[in-house]
Amino acid sequence: MSAIDLQGAAAKSAAAMLARCGTAKKNEALLCIANALEAQKQRIIDANAIDMKNAADSGMSPALQDRLALDASRIDAIAKGVREVVELPDPVGVVSKMETRPNGLVIGRKSVPLGVIAIIYEARPNVTVDAAVLCLKAGNAVILRGGKEAFNSNNAFTEIMREAVSSAGLPADSVSLVQDTTRGSVDELLNASAYIDVLIPRGGAGLINHVVANAKVPVIETGVGNCHVYVESSADLDMAARIVFNAKCRRVSVCNAAETLLVDRAVAGDFLPLAKGLLDTKSTELRGCVETVKILGESVKPAVEEDYYTEFLDYILAVKVVDGFDEAVAHIGKYSTQHSEAIVTSDYAYAQRFLEEVDAAAVYVNASTAFTDGGEFGLGAEIGISTQKMHARGPMGLNELTSSKFIVYGNGQVR
Amino acid sequence: MSAIDLQGAAAKSAAAMLARCGTAKKNEALLCIANALEAQKQRIIDANAIDMKNAADSGMSPALQDRLALDASRIDAIAKGVREVVELPDPVGVVSKMETRPNGLVIGRKSVPLGVIAIIYEARPNVTVDAAVLCLKAGNAVILRGGKEAFNSNNAFTEIMREAVSSAGLPADSVSLVQDTTRGSVDELLNASAYIDVLIPRGGAGLINHVVANAKVPVIETGVGNCHVYVESSADLDMAARIVFNAKCRRVSVCNAAETLLVDRAVAGDFLPLAKGLLDTKSTELRGCVETVKILGESVKPAVEEDYYTEFLDYILAVKVVDGFDEAVAHIGKYSTQHSEAIVTSDYAYAQRFLEEVDAAAVYVNASTAFTDGGEFGLGAEIGISTQKMHARGPMGLNELTSSKFIVYGNGQVR
Repeated sequence: MSAIDLQGAAAKSAAAMLARCGTAKKNEALLCIANALEAQKQRIIDANAIDMKNAADSGMSPALQDRLALDASRIDAIAKGVREVVELPDPVGVVSKMETRPNGLVIGRKSVPLGVIAIIYEARPNVTVDAAVLCLKAGNAVILRGGKEAFNSNNAFTEIMREAVSSAGLPADSVSLVQDTTRGSVDELLNASAYIDVLIPRGGAGLINHVVANAKVPVIETGVGNCHVYVESSADLDMAARIVFNAKCRRVSVCNAAETLLVDRAVAGDFLPLAKGLLDTKSTELRGCVETVKILGESVKPAVEEDYYTEFLDYILAVKVVDGFDEAVAHIGKYSTQHSEAIVTSDYAYAQRFLEEVDAAAVYVNASTAFTDGGEFGLGAEIGISTQKMHARGPMGLNELTSSKFIVYGNGQVR
Repeated sequence: MSAIDLQGAAAKSAAAMLARCGTAKKNEALLCIANALEAQKQRIIDANAIDMKNAADSGMSPALQDRLALDASRIDAIAKGVREVVELPDPVGVVSKMETRPNGLVIGRKSVPLGVIAIIYEARPNVTVDAAVLCLKAGNAVILRGGKEAFNSNNAFTEIMREAVSSAGLPADSVSLVQDTTRGSVDELLNASAYIDVLIPRGGAGLINHVVANAKVPVIETGVGNCHVYVESSADLDMAARIVFNAKCRRVSVCNAAETLLVDRAVAGDFLPLAKGLLDTKSTELRGCVETVKILGESVKPAVEEDYYTEFLDYILAVKVVDGFDEAVAHIGKYSTQHSEAIVTSDYAYAQRFLEEVDAAAVYVNASTAFTDGGEFGLGAEIGISTQKMHARGPMGLNELTSSKFIVYGNGQVR
């Protein structure tokens, strides 16, 4: 057996115990994790220092180094997040739609853990804890496969969690980290149908596409967001400018950030200078259609077709002037990754049609796409944002980390 | 573009119309299908005659020929099934958990169609209509890929459905049949991520394993059922014998049929002869452990390890004497395909523990596994029985053919 086979078998066996250990025991384990993280900050910071040194030596960009860095306040924030998960309701054991059939069978659908969840993720080490505790709360064992840049930090987090879970009387193998950080271990996980019930990739488009194309285990696709804000001609233009600015510039590196602005021809002349005024405060580069360039002048780069397909994840915004609602919706239908899409309008019918006709995980009227987030949507916490239609779509909370079984009470029925 | 690319693009465009055509229009199309099937029986029977002749010429077994055959009464039954789907509630457009967030955003989760569903299935031509109308009712376009043995029958059904859907004002491409019945078209479908949202294979283990191992599109795995009945020592033995007989012999070719009987040592001497009396009426072959052979004598074949892993789909039942509840649950955990599992007991604690501890799509106390079926479970109809944990588990009805989107009503919120 390979190392991953052994790890998978151990996780599967831990999952069977987690599935029936009850809410109190799971919460106890999570509290042990929170306490241990707070008590052992220096151990984590020491491990992180090795990763930070390697990062500096390898010339990692300052932005990525910042994502990798851990200090006491970041560790406290992570522990606080764990305590918040303790407070969330247990998603397991909820029986819905229980009913008595004409033959007397009493049939209900009960929520159960998925089993073993594998998470493949990139740089940020906080994911190690955030993802693990959500999986545990929903009664799942978790196999973590983080990036090599954060290996020492991830490993310290995982060891602390294993010790904490174990001290609460649950199997240490409820949480484990893949020790091999080469591409080979990713490919092994993609094929480990015998142990893994669901695999969730979290990272850039390259990772996600590789996983989706090659996995034999069931995958929940997350993340890539080519999001649009459409300013319809009846929009309150000041509101529209604030929404566009927020959707683009709140945090440019996240999947719910807007990448293309669509604006109706009738208001483009008034609106585009207004929006540019705000976007300029963050030196946002605009790439516009011919008409946009005509209105805003030479400071706007001409957009090429590829720009409308691109998730810039940067201070860059594609702009297109459209001839009304139908052209806007058609543009979104063609270029969107079906993540988050917004219209700004004061027209009732267009608002309702946009919600109905645009096919995306989250559709908005008069609000920023930046709200697509488990916390903002009231799910309590988030394991990722699904951009597929199966199982879960949009921000995924604890309920999305469960499956179900039919339970049937009979008294001798045969068919 | 290949033929399947063209078909996929046409289906995707039809799906966008279906998603917003409303319940009345969808029901009108389904009624047109039911009427057309009844009116054009001869056309279907003529096409089926070609398949039947080819089947006879190729030496197909009588059982498979019977599954392939269509006559007026079978077509009437199929049309009646379509009318029943008309009566079911529309699963699309249901908004759940709509709530106002502290910032004033009003956020709800609305059920929407999955989009384009591909069904790959084997011999039985009724699946062509049954599956298509369920997909349509849930607002999905469907691409059907049936077996070559039933091609002429499937094609006649599909042409009639396309004409009927079109006469109701919906796109004919809402339903289409893959014309290429070679393995190559299956593999093309498995890779058609650009068009297909979900793929559902229906058929034998060979087909399903090929699909799961090779698909790049999201798959809902169906079907393989290595189901157990466990007779616990406190069971009413007459009830237990009836349940075992029904679970094994009601229909041996279906996935919810029992394949292994587990019986507690304490009652094996009394129970096994009782069960054998019933099973003998269908000449059921028993393959037993050493103790079973000792009790029932030489007419029982000794079981080998492989028998406990086998879905016989035949009048064959593996039998094992166990040392109580824990051994039974461990055996099920090792050999089961997590489809349907039953205990017969009069002990309250064992009943509850079985429902809790056995990990399967359907778990039963004192009833036959033969009830695992969408109709029997009150789902109205069934597109298949999922044996995976993601998206849907157990019998899948109309709700399982939908996804969701978050709809967000704002009044200028930025984050």
